[in-house]
Amino acid sequence: MELVFISIGLGLLAVIYGFVTSRQVLGASAGNEKMQEIAGAIQEGAQAYLNRQYATIGMVGVVVAVLVGVFLGVIPAVGFLIGAILSGVAGYIGMNISVRSNVRTAAAAETSLQSGLTIAFRAGAITGMLVAGLALLAIAVFFYVLVGQMGFAANSRDVIDGLVGLAFGASLISIFARLGGGIFTKAADVGADLVGKVEAGIPEDDPRNPATIADNVGDNVGDCAGMAADLFETYVVTVGATMVLTALLLTQLDDLLMPLMALPLLIGGACIVTSIIGTYFVRLGKGTNVMGAMYKGFLVTAVLSIPLIWFATAHALGTAGTDMNTVLNPGTGMVEFTGRDLFYCSLIGLVLTGVIIWITEYYTGTNYRPVRSIAKASETGHGTNVIQGLAISLESTALPTIVIIAAIIGAYELAGLIGLAYGATAMLALAGMVVALDAYGPVTDNAGGIAEMAGLDESVREKTDLLDAVGNTTKAVTKGYAIGSAGLAALVLFSAYTADLNAFADKLGLDVVDGRAAVNFSLENPYVIVGLLLGALLPYLFGAMGMTAVGRAAGDVVKDVREQFKEKPGIMDYSEKPDYARTVDLVTKAAIKEMIIPSLLPVLAPIVVFFVIRWIDGSASAFAALGALLLGVIVGGLFVALSMTAGGGAWDNAKKYIEDGNHGGKGSEAHKAAVTGDTVGDPYKDTAGPAVNPMIKITNIVALLLLAALAH
Amino acid sequence: MELVFISIGLGLLAVIYGFVTSRQVLGASAGNEKMQEIAGAIQEGAQAYLNRQYATIGMVGVVVAVLVGVFLGVIPAVGFLIGAILSGVAGYIGMNISVRSNVRTAAAAETSLQSGLTIAFRAGAITGMLVAGLALLAIAVFFYVLVGQMGFAANSRDVIDGLVGLAFGASLISIFARLGGGIFTKAADVGADLVGKVEAGIPEDDPRNPATIADNVGDNVGDCAGMAADLFETYVVTVGATMVLTALLLTQLDDLLMPLMALPLLIGGACIVTSIIGTYFVRLGKGTNVMGAMYKGFLVTAVLSIPLIWFATAHALGTAGTDMNTVLNPGTGMVEFTGRDLFYCSLIGLVLTGVIIWITEYYTGTNYRPVRSIAKASETGHGTNVIQGLAISLESTALPTIVIIAAIIGAYELAGLIGLAYGATAMLALAGMVVALDAYGPVTDNAGGIAEMAGLDESVREKTDLLDAVGNTTKAVTKGYAIGSAGLAALVLFSAYTADLNAFADKLGLDVVDGRAAVNFSLENPYVIVGLLLGALLPYLFGAMGMTAVGRAAGDVVKDVREQFKEKPGIMDYSEKPDYARTVDLVTKAAIKEMIIPSLLPVLAPIVVFFVIRWIDGSASAFAALGALLLGVIVGGLFVALSMTAGGGAWDNAKKYIEDGNHGGKGSEAHKAAVTGDTVGDPYKDTAGPAVNPMIKITNIVALLLLAALAH
Repeated sequence: MELVFISIGLGLLAVIYGFVTSRQVLGASAGNEKMQEIAGAIQEGAQAYLNRQYATIGMVGVVVAVLVGVFLGVIPAVGFLIGAILSGVAGYIGMNISVRSNVRTAAAAETSLQSGLTIAFRAGAITGMLVAGLALLAIAVFFYVLVGQMGFAANSRDVIDGLVGLAFGASLISIFARLGGGIFTKAADVGADLVGKVEAGIPEDDPRNPATIADNVGDNVGDCAGMAADLFETYVVTVGATMVLTALLLTQLDDLLMPLMALPLLIGGACIVTSIIGTYFVRLGKGTNVMGAMYKGFLVTAVLSIPLIWFATAHALGTAGTDMNTVLNPGTGMVEFTGRDLFYCSLIGLVLTGVIIWITEYYTGTNYRPVRSIAKASETGHGTNVIQGLAISLESTALPTIVIIAAIIGAYELAGLIGLAYGATAMLALAGMVVALDAYGPVTDNAGGIAEMAGLDESVREKTDLLDAVGNTTKAVTKGYAIGSAGLAALVLFSAYTADLNAFADKLGLDVVDGRAAVNFSLENPYVIVGLLLGALLPYLFGAMGMTAVGRAAGDVVKDVREQFKEKPGIMDYSEKPDYARTVDLVTKAAIKEMIIPSLLPVLAPIVVFFVIRWIDGSASAFAALGALLLGVIVGGLFVALSMTAGGGAWDNAKKYIEDGNHGGKGSEAHKAAVTGDTVGDPYKDTAGPAVNPMIKITNIVALLLLAALAH
Repeated sequence: MELVFISIGLGLLAVIYGFVTSRQVLGASAGNEKMQEIAGAIQEGAQAYLNRQYATIGMVGVVVAVLVGVFLGVIPAVGFLIGAILSGVAGYIGMNISVRSNVRTAAAAETSLQSGLTIAFRAGAITGMLVAGLALLAIAVFFYVLVGQMGFAANSRDVIDGLVGLAFGASLISIFARLGGGIFTKAADVGADLVGKVEAGIPEDDPRNPATIADNVGDNVGDCAGMAADLFETYVVTVGATMVLTALLLTQLDDLLMPLMALPLLIGGACIVTSIIGTYFVRLGKGTNVMGAMYKGFLVTAVLSIPLIWFATAHALGTAGTDMNTVLNPGTGMVEFTGRDLFYCSLIGLVLTGVIIWITEYYTGTNYRPVRSIAKASETGHGTNVIQGLAISLESTALPTIVIIAAIIGAYELAGLIGLAYGATAMLALAGMVVALDAYGPVTDNAGGIAEMAGLDESVREKTDLLDAVGNTTKAVTKGYAIGSAGLAALVLFSAYTADLNAFADKLGLDVVDGRAAVNFSLENPYVIVGLLLGALLPYLFGAMGMTAVGRAAGDVVKDVREQFKEKPGIMDYSEKPDYARTVDLVTKAAIKEMIIPSLLPVLAPIVVFFVIRWIDGSASAFAALGALLLGVIVGGLFVALSMTAGGGAWDNAKKYIEDGNHGGKGSEAHKAAVTGDTVGDPYKDTAGPAVNPMIKITNIVALLLLAALAH
């Protein structure tokens, strides 16, 4: 239990960091009155949206909590509530910091680039550390209460179901936050662009555009609150699933069970320390290389994590009297491994994180072939821009898939499924730092908007533009990371599903052969093929719903703005003020309405598929099809998500690249084509693509819960 | 052997139909001199392209034939050559008919709509019957020579390998023809549109556009020659694989083996008869419902096929002294079935064909929600048009997947894997009629172009437009059918792979457990997951290459046309003639160059993956990963292909819908946005999407060949 206490301590450290740093950030100047007024409007809008979003999610959450309680018992229901509430809290606090730091970043940029960077990055770091810290605390404290206080065995069903419930709570909130926020941000963004830039011919962030506040609100609720909830969920799911898998699979490690279940927590704690240290290395050198400063911070964190993870692993094994080189025999049919192997697997996770970040930058950065090819294709028009963008988005799936495959093979060869789980855990352990990079994005994006709207000096806008250009890349990079890690986490969940199936075989009425449930997961079983096809279909259908929702909501925004221009003709010559709140309110309602049905798809699909197939061909086929569906979602979802997020990022930066004066620059025909590409990429990269993450995991978690409910 | 003779006779019937009908078509008036001149230019260009394409493919083909000969023996090499040559012949003849019927259709449309329809549909039917007839003859004659003349046992390795070689030959030509033709047609189309409609402001098919002949050539080499090769291949692969599977799996049916191996041929022959009858029912009623006339023909064919397939099945079983209700026990571990079950499975194939056609029409027809939603989204600009189009393309995968799944389950429950094979065979048996619908498309498209360029009366253009509007839908419908059937065919091939693995286990050095190779195809094996991911990646990478190729080649066309406009300023006032041949030549070179590397991807990927994984973890893991890769390609490819073809068709018809006077009609802002969508959809639906079909099957066939080569 000592290991769990250390982890709780380190989780608290992250929260304290967040508290102290937020006082620093909030202590900075909030700029002049005009700036504060604009920032106030954004705050108000974001607050209003989040309140309504959480109210809606809350209703769904209560219903689901009751269902979990009825079918699975009180502990999973409590776990569900903890996961749900803390996921919401992480997003909520993050967003509150974000909407207060934006104006302070703009004000600080009046002094120097470094000051602006410091405020914006610190703001991101607060969200990052809160996500990692709260996630770690949620699992560690819950585990401590169940095992240490209530006396359940670490591998008892109560603990396992509790952890799965916790993950479910986090995931369910996450998919709503991701999708709702994603629809909000892109409906506002696309709508504002279409009617502002294209029709009225006014620049981005022009205060005359009634949708401009909604656009800035969107950055916060999408990229900050949405991403925070997403990574909170991935963290909880990954670490939780690693613990569950340890409990389910490692059946012959009596003394080591407890240390090995606590080790993922400890690794998470260790990386909180290194992430905090890393944030202090985000500083500009002599030049203005903002991205370089970011990478410096990330690299410090990653490199420092290596010895700390070694130390954590050695310490955990030491508490049970073994060392890093002792060969552990986890149980029949399992790959043997040593502590050293687990360390290497963690290392694979760290390296995978770095490589995926690098690949994403290659595909979305303005210095490389992909973005430039899209920019060049814009010269021949809208059509060729979109064709090339789609080609890049398809292509961008290749390298990440190959490195993920290499990681899977490497981790599996070292330590079997547990190795895979440790790879995923180490990857997620860096979440604090990665979320910091991401949450930085909306702050600088808003800062630029505020500078523009408040009419600050051109030099300030230049600085905020420099800060913001990097935000585009860091946002893309984080999404690549989130999806890669989600893929690994989902594989761990799938393993938990098969392990659970064996554990429950009797209660589920399945035949048992050689101690395993007689469910045929072979590709030769047609129900496996059916499951794979159905699973792969889900991300497509989900993506279609997300894209349609954005299109529909953006259309509403366009109509609203057109009406405002008509009702208040004075808007154009600044003699009348547009009604920002009306647009915010409209987008809020649309986003909330549109998020419900797609979010329920991954919840209901596994249940429906299971019962339909059971009706056709019995339980064994139904469990096989359900298992295959889980893998199908992972395989299909990985490609859909990777292609959408990288493609969208590339389109966005191709536009930026042209705006920097290439291929004719701003206002050229190429630029118009690039704006179209950017618009197309928006729902790709910020709505449908990233929401596939939590979707994959929810499907898997619901399957686990279904198993447990059927066995009860 | 009697059954094989009947099949050969029916195959010859199709060829005779083609011969007789082509004399009828060619006997019709070829219009005035101007029309003949234009048609001559198209013929010349198409001929030149096809000659060069086949010369290039020929070189690759000879190399591959030698490799097949060295690694697998003479019979597979001969099979390969037969498949390759006949696939080429089918495309070649089809295209030759097509480029001669276009002008005759335009001329006939001067008389009446019915006359135009008759010529155009007959031209399509010639290609259709030749595809089905030659494919049937290829397999039946080859089988007869091997078994009847050379005396090999029907289920001997020589026969099996020979049939696989035949399928490989057909597939390899098909992927080149599909991709080369697809790149040609869309590079010309996109290039012509961009520089003509968008830049120069001249209408489609305007004779002043130097790329217009290339555009018309493209319709023929892409939609006619490419589709003919594609469905020739799918036919050979499906019927061949059903025979191979029968030989491999049904080990306890001594007397019935020969009739059951011949039955797929007989079903193919029966449907040739019904397809020929169906073609005579393609007639207009009182109105101008061209699509209705088409469906009448298809429906007659499908309905007449039901009793004929029953009769064929009963007759085949009768030759071995059993009837439709005798329960057959095919061997250990196999599902028992009756002749009646096989008939029901064939029925499933027929129904699946009809339902997929209906679904495709729903997603691509102008009367339904999907196309209209894209048209409506065009009102708010290029961006929203593309977003909605992408949403529809993602959504359009759902219904086909669900009905395919229902078909898989139904056929499998009735008669196991063999049932699935019979479903696929019956589906393909309708290929003659379906290709007729498809090949009709380029003829009417060209007819419209010729009418425009030759300055025929407005009323003629109206009639060709009526004929052509349907062509858009029939082309989309055929693609949906081709992909659905390819999915089933690939599943049959995958079954052949696993059956082969068991047959070869000893020679491959694999352990044998319970008479089966000890290869773990379970989803719990990480190498299966690795294989699934790699397999699903292939269509993405392949699609990226295809899209990029079109973008690049279209860019070349734009440059060439711009140069021609500059060099010959008189083009615009008709005082100078553009150099059509130069553009055709340029696109030809580009298409040939661009088709090579993507085409080799599915050939090399399975080989590379196998050897890399074998090097890492030994043979058993390598075979598991390879098998999973095959399924991954099917699962991934199905979605990529379905979404691309349906999405592209929807974009195309959304443009047509606006041109019909909706949302502002031609020249409106909505129309411009719709043109962008159409351009984006072009390479989606005519290059990358359909080429995924042969790609899926090549990957599977190469794996079969690899197994055989390793076992030798």
